[in-house]
Amino acid sequence: MEKLVVIGLGLIGGSLALDLKLRMNFKVVGVDQNPAHVKKALELGFIDEEGSLDDLSYASVVIIAVPVNVIGEVSKQVLNVIGKDTLVFDVGSVKNEICKAVEQHPKRKNFVAAHPMAGTEFSGPEAAILNLFDDKVNIICEADKTDWRILDHAISLFKQLNMHIKMMNPVEHDRHIAYVSHLSHVSSFMLGKTVLEIEKNEEAIFDMASTGFASTVRLAKSSSSTWTPIFLENKENLIKSLNEYIKNLKEFKKMVEDDDAKGLNDTMDGTNYIKTVLNGIK
Amino acid sequence: MEKLVVIGLGLIGGSLALDLKLRMNFKVVGVDQNPAHVKKALELGFIDEEGSLDDLSYASVVIIAVPVNVIGEVSKQVLNVIGKDTLVFDVGSVKNEICKAVEQHPKRKNFVAAHPMAGTEFSGPEAAILNLFDDKVNIICEADKTDWRILDHAISLFKQLNMHIKMMNPVEHDRHIAYVSHLSHVSSFMLGKTVLEIEKNEEAIFDMASTGFASTVRLAKSSSSTWTPIFLENKENLIKSLNEYIKNLKEFKKMVEDDDAKGLNDTMDGTNYIKTVLNGIK
Repeated sequence: MEKLVVIGLGLIGGSLALDLKLRMNFKVVGVDQNPAHVKKALELGFIDEEGSLDDLSYASVVIIAVPVNVIGEVSKQVLNVIGKDTLVFDVGSVKNEICKAVEQHPKRKNFVAAHPMAGTEFSGPEAAILNLFDDKVNIICEADKTDWRILDHAISLFKQLNMHIKMMNPVEHDRHIAYVSHLSHVSSFMLGKTVLEIEKNEEAIFDMASTGFASTVRLAKSSSSTWTPIFLENKENLIKSLNEYIKNLKEFKKMVEDDDAKGLNDTMDGTNYIKTVLNGIK
Repeated sequence: MEKLVVIGLGLIGGSLALDLKLRMNFKVVGVDQNPAHVKKALELGFIDEEGSLDDLSYASVVIIAVPVNVIGEVSKQVLNVIGKDTLVFDVGSVKNEICKAVEQHPKRKNFVAAHPMAGTEFSGPEAAILNLFDDKVNIICEADKTDWRILDHAISLFKQLNMHIKMMNPVEHDRHIAYVSHLSHVSSFMLGKTVLEIEKNEEAIFDMASTGFASTVRLAKSSSSTWTPIFLENKENLIKSLNEYIKNLKEFKKMVEDDDAKGLNDTMDGTNYIKTVLNGIK
């Protein structure tokens, strides 16, 4: 029975373990710094046993699903101890620093820099769910630095998960993702913070939280231990996107102050174009 | 057969017509400035015939579901021509100006200032859906200015729609709603605008629009003809909420710039409290 090692047993690592175990009959070995996560993953049954980073030569596949700020270091440690045919891939949502970290490693060819674009606002082993990746996009960066057989192995796994695959330059990836994912999280967190600060009276929020608020603030339930490293790892792109966002908010506020109905209409009508764009979502 | 008159055949007016017709067997008369809306509402079958504002003495109930900036004027016109037992209620999401507009009207006692807190990002007669109001909150302002029998009639209708009823001062209503509804819409519109401006390449948005982005930007699909009047009608509260929101975004950006991991963690952990608050959502 082929062995899959999953390092980091949270939402993404756990969900990958769950689906790959069911669909491909792997024996799954789990690694996590937090003993409570290992215990929970064993209880939930998505790992079969606990492992360590001392020797991974037995592993057919190793998935690195730890916070982005440690992926680079963990990846190098893992590459040091794998077998010659082991596929290693990470799932970080910032890619440039990770690609640079492993660039010079003698086993770079065993590594695939991936970003499976799927998730929920929940975290930890309990957040692991089935079918999280179906019909979602998986971005692979610097695929040309991976051995073709290793890459083909990775693609086979991703196809078992029913993912779409897109190749992308890591610098471009990080720039785009700042806008379409990281900025969404900050805007949602700050919406939650602003409302909490003002609405001291919880009953009022309870009553007034229409579904519009609930969906816009959903991402504010996300875990800081996941998102602080992401924001700092993609700092420059995020700051640029935040500057644009704040500028747009100020311009909109100015139009409200000036009773500029035409300006408000035009701005919102133009933004309605997002409908057309999102209709194509996978 | 009792007659219900619905003025404004969009998402809210249409959905109310649909549910009240089915649940209470009203004959529904529709009024809308836009002939295409009347035609569509007749085709969809949620109104039985077209009416006018010349004489509403025959109406048992009149619902005013036009944009908030004209609700005050339309309400006064309607009150001028109703019968002595006719119930009139509006559904505007800003309440203070409307309450002031009808305050001195001799038929103020026939009027209920309501805000059924339900909706979607869609608009027009085609957006009308069944069961939109079930288990949602309906806020009634200045209920003491309504005749008790008229108010009781309104409450009976709202209970047929399975709504929860909350009484609220209109000034308080407008202040709260700026934060939990109007600010959500602006933050979502500006997120959509920012992403559209940067991501000129649509294919990139298509691929990268993970479900997180899709839910946060959902409200940016909303209609400007609904929302421009709302934003301007609740101008002062909205500006205040936008100032707070922009301040929070800038503070967050500063923490990113300063690599202040602790500050980011603390801010996000504090905001996670929104989970607890939203778990009580009706």
